[in-house]
Amino acid sequence: MANYVIGIDLGGTNTVIGLVDASGKILAKDDSVKTQKYAELNDYADAVVAVINKLAADNSVAMSDIEGIGVGAPMGNYYSGDIENAANLPWKGRVPLGRVLTEKSGLPTKVTNDANAAAIGEMKYGAAKGMRDFIVITLGTGVGSGIVSGGNLIYGHDGLAGELGHVTAYEREGRQCGCGRIDCLETYASATGFVRTAKAWLEKRDDATVLRSVSPDELTSKMIYDAAVQGDAFAKELFEFTGAILGEAFCDFIAFSVPQAIILFGGLANAGELLLEPIRTRMNQKVVSFWKNKVDILQSSLSGADAAVLGASALGWK
Amino acid sequence: MANYVIGIDLGGTNTVIGLVDASGKILAKDDSVKTQKYAELNDYADAVVAVINKLAADNSVAMSDIEGIGVGAPMGNYYSGDIENAANLPWKGRVPLGRVLTEKSGLPTKVTNDANAAAIGEMKYGAAKGMRDFIVITLGTGVGSGIVSGGNLIYGHDGLAGELGHVTAYEREGRQCGCGRIDCLETYASATGFVRTAKAWLEKRDDATVLRSVSPDELTSKMIYDAAVQGDAFAKELFEFTGAILGEAFCDFIAFSVPQAIILFGGLANAGELLLEPIRTRMNQKVVSFWKNKVDILQSSLSGADAAVLGASALGWK
Repeated sequence: MANYVIGIDLGGTNTVIGLVDASGKILAKDDSVKTQKYAELNDYADAVVAVINKLAADNSVAMSDIEGIGVGAPMGNYYSGDIENAANLPWKGRVPLGRVLTEKSGLPTKVTNDANAAAIGEMKYGAAKGMRDFIVITLGTGVGSGIVSGGNLIYGHDGLAGELGHVTAYEREGRQCGCGRIDCLETYASATGFVRTAKAWLEKRDDATVLRSVSPDELTSKMIYDAAVQGDAFAKELFEFTGAILGEAFCDFIAFSVPQAIILFGGLANAGELLLEPIRTRMNQKVVSFWKNKVDILQSSLSGADAAVLGASALGWK
Repeated sequence: MANYVIGIDLGGTNTVIGLVDASGKILAKDDSVKTQKYAELNDYADAVVAVINKLAADNSVAMSDIEGIGVGAPMGNYYSGDIENAANLPWKGRVPLGRVLTEKSGLPTKVTNDANAAAIGEMKYGAAKGMRDFIVITLGTGVGSGIVSGGNLIYGHDGLAGELGHVTAYEREGRQCGCGRIDCLETYASATGFVRTAKAWLEKRDDATVLRSVSPDELTSKMIYDAAVQGDAFAKELFEFTGAILGEAFCDFIAFSVPQAIILFGGLANAGELLLEPIRTRMNQKVVSFWKNKVDILQSSLSGADAAVLGASALGWK
């Protein structure tokens, strides 16, 4: 058995590539490959493999001492190794990422979606260590999820299971989602959806808030967070509203797989208790009575980039 | 290894006990134990064990040739073998059914909920044979579910996962569910919920239907089925409405675990295409686009009592 693996966090903007040892330590990390620069998968794979070779050489690791590559990517299919119709990546339709990386690197490559990779990262090294049943919800540009049941990731019949950003939100008003559905959870609980709520409220309400000093087009979730921390009631209400929607959605997730914990990861999750507290309150108010106060709502204990790289890397081991 | 197992379908009214061989053949079946007659778990267990002994003797099977007992019961917990707060059973709180049956029979006993037992039955002997990812939805007095992912039942952290009758229905009007929540799927899609819709419509609408000739208190789902088969538009619309609610709920279930098929079992499922067709139509209209027409909606291929007994019996094997 080799002593190292490569973990790749393939994002719409950056690709982060890490060289990881058997203890889960990231020896070296590189984010020089800008995903959007590569219109062709082939060119992208060449750039990735060049970085892998460089990371190995810089750290005096022989390629033969690398067991394999694990990739977390939007719409990454664990079964086929393909990426399928990822909205925010340059390659359209179905592209054979796993096969191409294997051919170019000589290393076996496993692919899964980014939220599943985060879930594996949390299970091996983070907030879900020792848990056999938990759900990771990623709150970024979109909302994703990695669902672990009985110690196993739920991949589903087609390898694409765990799209909990695309369940219907409980409190709804007809928001169009990028996926074609109406009122997906993602249209409220992603960083984008959160800002969308803020803009809608700014337009239809007239209470005072420091957020009115920002042009609506420049508003970010970070600005709303900063305003809430400074005591802005409007900003705090935005977190309460969004937390309540997540809390109601979590009631349904609990009925499905009864996780020990639901772990929030990335983007909006960095708001911590500002978001977690209203989630817990609404969830425990609405959930089937015998699950009241039984499911922990936690924030990821790994830094964003590390969890994704570590989680992906875990797929690299045989 | 022994050659036989006992499968028990513990219902609110009847307890069906079957002697099953290794090929899944029910050699003999007994439904003489009336669940509600036994205020004490001990007396119930004595009656069940007496039937097991009789079934073995009548079929010339030695008790030593029985490998174990599997029980499907409402709120049956696979991990503990207990039944926990089952609303329709005579024993309140948490009762140690598995332990008591083991003590009295000398046979190892495994317990799970009735919908999980049905799912195991469908997987081993029915419509889900060969499938690794599917969901069984039971449409009886309540709505239950057994979820199989990657060939494994989802039991969750507490052994009680898969309560898909208690997710929120998409089209809702504030119906109180027995579980304490508002607008659970069960309040629409159980046989009881279906009749509840019929009564509400009969009251607020005035279109003609043969169902007006029945006293509302005596209305049953079977009567509505018969009316629909005879072409009653009101009755047909009830199936379309209920199917649409199920179809929308299934969109969320698909986003969770992407089953190859969703299999409807018991009670209302016996209406067949009258219910299945509107489910398919609405589901494929509303589901995330890449899952359109990818998930089969099937009717159970096992007779009700047999699937439950066979599914439970499968737990009896080591």
